[in-house]
Amino acid sequence: MKMKSMQVCLILAIVLIGTSMVCAKERMIRWKYNSLWPVGIGLYEGDKYFCDTVNRLSNGRLKIKLYPSGQLLPGYQNLDAVKKGTIQCAGDFGSYWVGKNTAFDILATTPMGMTWIDYMLWIYHGGGQQLYDELYGQYGCKWLLQNFTPIEAGIRTHKPIRTLEDYKGLRLRMGSLFGQKILQKLGASPVLLDGSEVYESVARKVVDGAEFSIATVDWTVGFQNITKYWNAPAWYQTAIVLGVIVNQDAWNELPDDLKEVVIQASRATTAYMSSWFEYGNIKATQDFLAAGTEITHLDDDSIKKISAIISEVLAEEAEKNPDFKKILSSQIKFMKDFSPVRDYESPFTFGTNSISLPELK
Amino acid sequence: MKMKSMQVCLILAIVLIGTSMVCAKERMIRWKYNSLWPVGIGLYEGDKYFCDTVNRLSNGRLKIKLYPSGQLLPGYQNLDAVKKGTIQCAGDFGSYWVGKNTAFDILATTPMGMTWIDYMLWIYHGGGQQLYDELYGQYGCKWLLQNFTPIEAGIRTHKPIRTLEDYKGLRLRMGSLFGQKILQKLGASPVLLDGSEVYESVARKVVDGAEFSIATVDWTVGFQNITKYWNAPAWYQTAIVLGVIVNQDAWNELPDDLKEVVIQASRATTAYMSSWFEYGNIKATQDFLAAGTEITHLDDDSIKKISAIISEVLAEEAEKNPDFKKILSSQIKFMKDFSPVRDYESPFTFGTNSISLPELK
Repeated sequence: MKMKSMQVCLILAIVLIGTSMVCAKERMIRWKYNSLWPVGIGLYEGDKYFCDTVNRLSNGRLKIKLYPSGQLLPGYQNLDAVKKGTIQCAGDFGSYWVGKNTAFDILATTPMGMTWIDYMLWIYHGGGQQLYDELYGQYGCKWLLQNFTPIEAGIRTHKPIRTLEDYKGLRLRMGSLFGQKILQKLGASPVLLDGSEVYESVARKVVDGAEFSIATVDWTVGFQNITKYWNAPAWYQTAIVLGVIVNQDAWNELPDDLKEVVIQASRATTAYMSSWFEYGNIKATQDFLAAGTEITHLDDDSIKKISAIISEVLAEEAEKNPDFKKILSSQIKFMKDFSPVRDYESPFTFGTNSISLPELK
Repeated sequence: MKMKSMQVCLILAIVLIGTSMVCAKERMIRWKYNSLWPVGIGLYEGDKYFCDTVNRLSNGRLKIKLYPSGQLLPGYQNLDAVKKGTIQCAGDFGSYWVGKNTAFDILATTPMGMTWIDYMLWIYHGGGQQLYDELYGQYGCKWLLQNFTPIEAGIRTHKPIRTLEDYKGLRLRMGSLFGQKILQKLGASPVLLDGSEVYESVARKVVDGAEFSIATVDWTVGFQNITKYWNAPAWYQTAIVLGVIVNQDAWNELPDDLKEVVIQASRATTAYMSSWFEYGNIKATQDFLAAGTEITHLDDDSIKKISAIISEVLAEEAEKNPDFKKILSSQIKFMKDFSPVRDYESPFTFGTNSISLPELK
């Protein structure tokens, strides 16, 4: 081999190695993910599963660093922070952004509406995904389903609530906007309390009761020590949709194969973590019952009456907000279309057809 | 640079490039996957989603080639072929292996037992996974959940079935072992027909009716052209668990990060495809109703009576087969444990508590 050709070979070899090293370096993308929750709350586990899965599946090419709420910034700033690009992605629960647009609320939970399995069908196959992307798109975000928690446990109270009459005159903590409107129509006084104030307010009987979360989470709050009764079902929150919001530019810059990693990780999280939350309610419910808590379940007639009130409240909001109307219409269409399927599958199906649906003009 | 050091560099460079090429080549693993279904059947789509997802997520390092049933080998040979290592993995539906061990049947579907969402909780979090791995492990296989189809549509009949009396004397095609035993106790004559014979036998009234699959699949068979009535719910098959079986040696040889790819792909498939099958029933049901099919739904009392018969039949089998007993006991434990949760969540929950459960000695 001649000196010159050897030199060429050597340069070529160095260039090749150098290029591959540069490529490897260029391909590594780092994202920050802000959770909506502090570490202690079970809901944080959904974020953790999602981020871990993306990191493993991308083989280190996309590295998402997860921060609990409050460490980097508080969770309630997530939508703004992702929009600005301060962070690339974050945990999402639409009801947190209801101050910006009430339509976010029914992307997170529709009172006495779809169950988490209904939401899953609607988001993946019934046009839901597009509606999330449209509304979150107005805030510079791409939206992905991360997981569900099932219907909330219910309202923890000092006195038993068995019929609609029993709501009258009670001061009840209610987190959601529509839950508050419905409680008012039932003759109760809804009270807005921050999560951190709930335990003390119930324990000191400043309020007559409070809703908080699913049974697993409620147990960790300690409601078994301060309330005797548990009023179910949680008509104000029959599913909880938890998502991931990604800065649209960060999303667009992702190579197609990493987009695929993020999408499939979100679906894997949905299957595994939604069932984890639902399964977790077994232990929590056993614990509550063993601690002497009594479940007071509303009868069918009360549920039907609340359903009618909900339909009214939702139809009123649809008149005011076109985004809300568009999303609610799509949900109603799904519920109507699925209704004959649910009928023939019953009782081996999910959710219910036996409630009223809003009539939109 | 001196000639000698240049030579060293050159050799080093060539070795480095060579090594990385060899590594890349060594890391590529090729698997064959045999589907249980031919291409035309919707169920094939679950296999396709799973294989495509593994291929994309592994970035070509694990390449699964999907074969429709019959091209490489017939689907009913899947368990034997995976055991022998003829193929590395395949589609699974436990009821196909009931000739080897009746316990396979309730890993695939338990009559009037768990719905697909119950199965999901039980498999992921209630000890189910371990029981699948134990039984399939006896045949040299690792088992992974791939997806569910929901409760079957029901029995397609020439005469309406509205009460238990109506089953008496009917000759009905029934694919599942326990479905056949229950039909006998209801006074009907169960007929075992291969899938390919069903249409002709019903059309020519050799049988009085037949069950086949979910509404989407039943529509493609053409039952709307040959039967007037559709008897629901499909008490004999309230969920369908579809899995992936992997040769245990092939699984063990997989690096950990590729195992992770396969596991997460199977979870993503579960979320996306299970809801795809359920959502697909909307269109199929609309089509059946538009074609003049009448759904005859059993009343609650009939469902309770069938449930009691099912409990008897399952308890009998548990007495004969310890594997069956172990799996059924675990399912019963899940159903009992979940029962108070389902009660307080109702009607915004899934499945039902209002049926009898087998009592095992």
